[in-house]
Amino acid sequence: MIFLASDNWAGAHPKIAAGLSHHAAGFAEAYGASRLDRAVAERFNAIFEREVAVFFVATGTAANALALTAGARPGGVAFAHREAHVLEDECGASEYLSGGCRVQPIDGDLGRIDPARLRHALARLGTDNLHAGQPTAVTVTQATEAGTVYPLAAIAEIGEIARSHGLLFHMDGARFANALVALEATPAEMTWKRGVDIMSFGGTKNGCWCAEAVVLFDPGRTRDFGFLRKRAAQLFSKSRFVAAQFEAYFADGLWLELAAHANAMAGRLAGRIAASSALRLAWKPEANEVFAVMNRELFGRLKREAIFYPWAIPHASAGEIGPDETLCRLVTSFATTAADIDGFAALFR
Amino acid sequence: MIFLASDNWAGAHPKIAAGLSHHAAGFAEAYGASRLDRAVAERFNAIFEREVAVFFVATGTAANALALTAGARPGGVAFAHREAHVLEDECGASEYLSGGCRVQPIDGDLGRIDPARLRHALARLGTDNLHAGQPTAVTVTQATEAGTVYPLAAIAEIGEIARSHGLLFHMDGARFANALVALEATPAEMTWKRGVDIMSFGGTKNGCWCAEAVVLFDPGRTRDFGFLRKRAAQLFSKSRFVAAQFEAYFADGLWLELAAHANAMAGRLAGRIAASSALRLAWKPEANEVFAVMNRELFGRLKREAIFYPWAIPHASAGEIGPDETLCRLVTSFATTAADIDGFAALFR
Amino acid sequence: MIFLASDNWAGAHPKIAAGLSHHAAGFAEAYGASRLDRAVAERFNAIFEREVAVFFVATGTAANALALTAGARPGGVAFAHREAHVLEDECGASEYLSGGCRVQPIDGDLGRIDPARLRHALARLGTDNLHAGQPTAVTVTQATEAGTVYPLAAIAEIGEIARSHGLLFHMDGARFANALVALEATPAEMTWKRGVDIMSFGGTKNGCWCAEAVVLFDPGRTRDFGFLRKRAAQLFSKSRFVAAQFEAYFADGLWLELAAHANAMAGRLAGRIAASSALRLAWKPEANEVFAVMNRELFGRLKREAIFYPWAIPHASAGEIGPDETLCRLVTSFATTAADIDGFAALFR
Amino acid sequence: MIFLASDNWAGAHPKIAAGLSHHAAGFAEAYGASRLDRAVAERFNAIFEREVAVFFVATGTAANALALTAGARPGGVAFAHREAHVLEDECGASEYLSGGCRVQPIDGDLGRIDPARLRHALARLGTDNLHAGQPTAVTVTQATEAGTVYPLAAIAEIGEIARSHGLLFHMDGARFANALVALEATPAEMTWKRGVDIMSFGGTKNGCWCAEAVVLFDPGRTRDFGFLRKRAAQLFSKSRFVAAQFEAYFADGLWLELAAHANAMAGRLAGRIAASSALRLAWKPEANEVFAVMNRELFGRLKREAIFYPWAIPHASAGEIGPDETLCRLVTSFATTAADIDGFAALFR
Repeated sequence: MIFLASDNWAGAHPKIAAGLSHHAAGFAEAYGASRLDRAVAERFNAIFEREVAVFFVATGTAANALALTAGARPGGVAFAHREAHVLEDECGASEYLSGGCRVQPIDGDLGRIDPARLRHALARLGTDNLHAGQPTAVTVTQATEAGTVYPLAAIAEIGEIARSHGLLFHMDGARFANALVALEATPAEMTWKRGVDIMSFGGTKNGCWCAEAVVLFDPGRTRDFGFLRKRAAQLFSKSRFVAAQFEAYFADGLWLELAAHANAMAGRLAGRIAASSALRLAWKPEANEVFAVMNRELFGRLKREAIFYPWAIPHASAGEIGPDETLCRLVTSFATTAADIDGFAALFR
Repeated sequence: MIFLASDNWAGAHPKIAAGLSHHAAGFAEAYGASRLDRAVAERFNAIFEREVAVFFVATGTAANALALTAGARPGGVAFAHREAHVLEDECGASEYLSGGCRVQPIDGDLGRIDPARLRHALARLGTDNLHAGQPTAVTVTQATEAGTVYPLAAIAEIGEIARSHGLLFHMDGARFANALVALEATPAEMTWKRGVDIMSFGGTKNGCWCAEAVVLFDPGRTRDFGFLRKRAAQLFSKSRFVAAQFEAYFADGLWLELAAHANAMAGRLAGRIAASSALRLAWKPEANEVFAVMNRELFGRLKREAIFYPWAIPHASAGEIGPDETLCRLVTSFATTAADIDGFAALFR
Repeated sequence: MIFLASDNWAGAHPKIAAGLSHHAAGFAEAYGASRLDRAVAERFNAIFEREVAVFFVATGTAANALALTAGARPGGVAFAHREAHVLEDECGASEYLSGGCRVQPIDGDLGRIDPARLRHALARLGTDNLHAGQPTAVTVTQATEAGTVYPLAAIAEIGEIARSHGLLFHMDGARFANALVALEATPAEMTWKRGVDIMSFGGTKNGCWCAEAVVLFDPGRTRDFGFLRKRAAQLFSKSRFVAAQFEAYFADGLWLELAAHANAMAGRLAGRIAASSALRLAWKPEANEVFAVMNRELFGRLKREAIFYPWAIPHASAGEIGPDETLCRLVTSFATTAADIDGFAALFR
Repeated sequence: MIFLASDNWAGAHPKIAAGLSHHAAGFAEAYGASRLDRAVAERFNAIFEREVAVFFVATGTAANALALTAGARPGGVAFAHREAHVLEDECGASEYLSGGCRVQPIDGDLGRIDPARLRHALARLGTDNLHAGQPTAVTVTQATEAGTVYPLAAIAEIGEIARSHGLLFHMDGARFANALVALEATPAEMTWKRGVDIMSFGGTKNGCWCAEAVVLFDPGRTRDFGFLRKRAAQLFSKSRFVAAQFEAYFADGLWLELAAHANAMAGRLAGRIAASSALRLAWKPEANEVFAVMNRELFGRLKREAIFYPWAIPHASAGEIGPDETLCRLVTSFATTAADIDGFAALFR
């Protein structure tokens, strides 16, 4: 079998596993107060070139939902791309954990919020309309659910909209490293230097087994966040084992290396698809997800040898998809090999 | 330093760490659908001698809060011992995640709910008092926060109260294995055979680094629980790494062996204290926590060589504690050695 | 000034005011247990030709939100027309009071849910998709926000969809009486005989000053509703004064008479608009709201003599609206007089 | 029958009923924007001798719960007297509407929080204990559930504790007027001049049929409160009819006159009890509630002629109550007559 279903089907990178084992023995403070926790927090400061507050949580969904909860206000409305994970794949966690704040979908091509539509939605909502509610936050996903990335200028533009409307600006970085290497940007350039206030920093999809964090750039929001996380049952007692994963993840640039590999595998796959007449790219991949259109016969044939899924995009950016065609998502990861890609490509060559 | 602060200061047992590493490579279904997840679910069935539903979550607090949320109803009131973790140490997670259900403290000696007081509280609340609210659940902690255990008959008595009042009966088993070996009971005998409907099954304090689960004995409550967990951001994508910990935890009875060791270390420590005139046992330990009363001079001296905490019991069961005395909690774990205990005892001999 | 802004700008009908005064003196049981409360509950049974459970609440928003909360489940998704009050004008009350359940917009012409789109949305969501959430309820507004009504067969069709998918079927009857007289149907025919499980029964817009109720047709949901209402701070202590309003409202068919009058005034206004070349009907009114398209010059002129609002319809059903034209909503009520309409019509004749 | 069950069994005062009828006709802005709403808001400013923000709500429970919600923070703990309405009689509304914040009981004699116990609870909770939660608010009831009042100095003392711990200081004024006339204080002296930040201002128990408001003295909390109220479904569309009640309530000092009458009736009743050997005062009444201890025989006899209830006080301040005795609550109101009191007294003379 060739595994292209999702990057969370991959296991843990050997160095991450070794990092965990390395720290298994011995005693240490619980609940994030250990030396290792503190060292990793320092590492985050270095990575972001400023003092940040880091809160480990169990899942990317937790990171997103608690970040939006940190920005919640009565009658609040957050804005997300229509295909965002927070809207489509988190079972209403943000609405639940925020006590009922709403997440309003905004359209835009290829998984990216269209700033004009965001401005329009904000203008329509207003700021003092008790009946409609008040705007509180905007969240972008970097890399997006469509396997694309926001250019730095696009992040800055949304950051400016957020700033001028008093919105919390959140970035869902479940595939942060993939976006970083795609843009050849620094973490600082892709976040707070473009107006991001808070982010979900994901390591799980890129080689950790469970390493997710909320990073706050805005110290004013830090005060209550510790209570918010604990109350949401997201404070690990043996927190240092998340720290241990991040320690290994950051050591010698492993995280960027793994993301670069995953992106390269996606590029290799995209190249094979582009060169084939049996199927076509739905759009140009920019990170580690490839979207392809194929007919049902081919789909059925590939499914016997590989695991991947059709993709239901509510507002297709994929051009015309014929009645007997299927749009599919193919995800690469740190664990995908060139042989996997070549084996898969051999099936449709 | 000698570490007696909490069992969650210990690391991961080498076999647990090895289990994680063993499964690090390869691809598998995410979100709990992998072969390993399913095998471990079967293992839970075997352990409980019946079909159960198992849901991994990130923390013991999550397990407790989601269990009580599963039993929540409008205006609901759950009952817990006044010193229960759910009341004292979870930052209101149960109230938050259940959408505002309340947890009412019930007194009782040595961490155990007094059934008569529970009956009295239920009688006072009634079942149709719109102003006061309706009773929904009762939770017991086994082993308790006071390091004692409920005898099987006591569990059965509370189970009968729960049944006759239509309450969900929850057991917080953060130290389940310690209680099991203390009572020499089977998991079935200590839970559903005594009326328990749902439990928090903890592995973290007993040698895992992060292995907590909600176990449902009542199939009628299973339907919504998956949504409840996902919505609470507690569904791990790489769930199989929790499964991997439980696999190793259960293999060859490791879990009971580790708990027996922790309990034995507590017994060893209790013996040394009982034999000393420098301090005294507050009460007889039954699992892996020892409570001792010492004067401040000794307390200060021991604190220089060991890490442990004073214990603020709202309703003391400790007899008279003098004005210059301190009640302290000393927790042993799988990682505590006889040398640790003897070294600690040497400090007060 | 001529008042066409909303039916909630009208005051209280003299008979309603007299009813309140009539019951002002004397003592009676609080919290809904008085003789008058019980008599009015009986009246509801008679009106609906079956035993129903009636719960007075303070606002239509409360009725809607508590009804949807009664049907809430973890990860729940309710469906409403995109222009529904519950989505556009209630500040997220349903999401808040239900603990984060979501309300998903469904399109459809003229304020009515398109059953095909509802079926499609249900098929897309599925029933066991932990990531997307589970469907829980569907709500229709009768009469709709567009001043139209669902024919009985349309209600039955949505009722059948609800039944087959296990959804709670809710009707927002803020303008229930206006729809009843428009359809010449009985309350039973327009609700439970077409599959409605629970409804918001509004009297405020039709001549009461504050008389809103949740009516439950499904006895299985009654048990917890009393707690739900009390917990949401919606149980009036002097409940009998809501009952007093309903008593007068129902006496001698006053409620239907008032609604018929309001509808007739809307019809009269529509006739004047249809007969004028200065503006046009956006669509045919069926209850007590008239939507008209006029140019900005006329809009400005009318606004000097009358109070009414432009209407922002997200998904226009109004045909082409020119760049210098405005879509306006004109609402009649029990208090609107023929002279009001004629005076207004004189402005554009 | 003689009615002494509760002041909410009384109807509406004739002047309040007349005020409602007076404003019944005509059109006016909905949702609190009418001229009458604004005039009454000005009246509140005059009454409190400063600019305040006034938000009408449906019930006293709503006022209390939204006030505490306005002060809620993650993991928050509010403090209330153990017998407070918010804890005993509101079905968990504060916990529910605040998204799970907890209300911790504080003991104290005769319905009044003991400042020393409050300080102790705050010291025990601390400010940075993630596990225990953070303190957010303190609420006092004036007049208390025990029919007593806090002297001004006691309010100031709790106000100072609140200020120094960063707590929101809330006053539940369901019987505010009764306390005012008992203390011969001004509204300003009894609230913001003693540190109160926010209050529940009740008119319902004192002659209105439904007139409750939240009054905010702290402008910083005003911004979000409008959304908070609307989202909680507590914004009346025909808000001006609450305003109409308050207009009549305040006119010519009616509210103080009614409260003085109710208190005088309680005094008259207390005098009769004190003069009788058949029963005794449990403690000295200070507002409009009298607590008496009688034997069961007398209790049974009185119950045949009058409506009143036994009172279950969790922590009795009533001295010794014999095994065959009953503690009873007798509540007077604006509608209680001297003849009622004398008739009741004749039963035990």
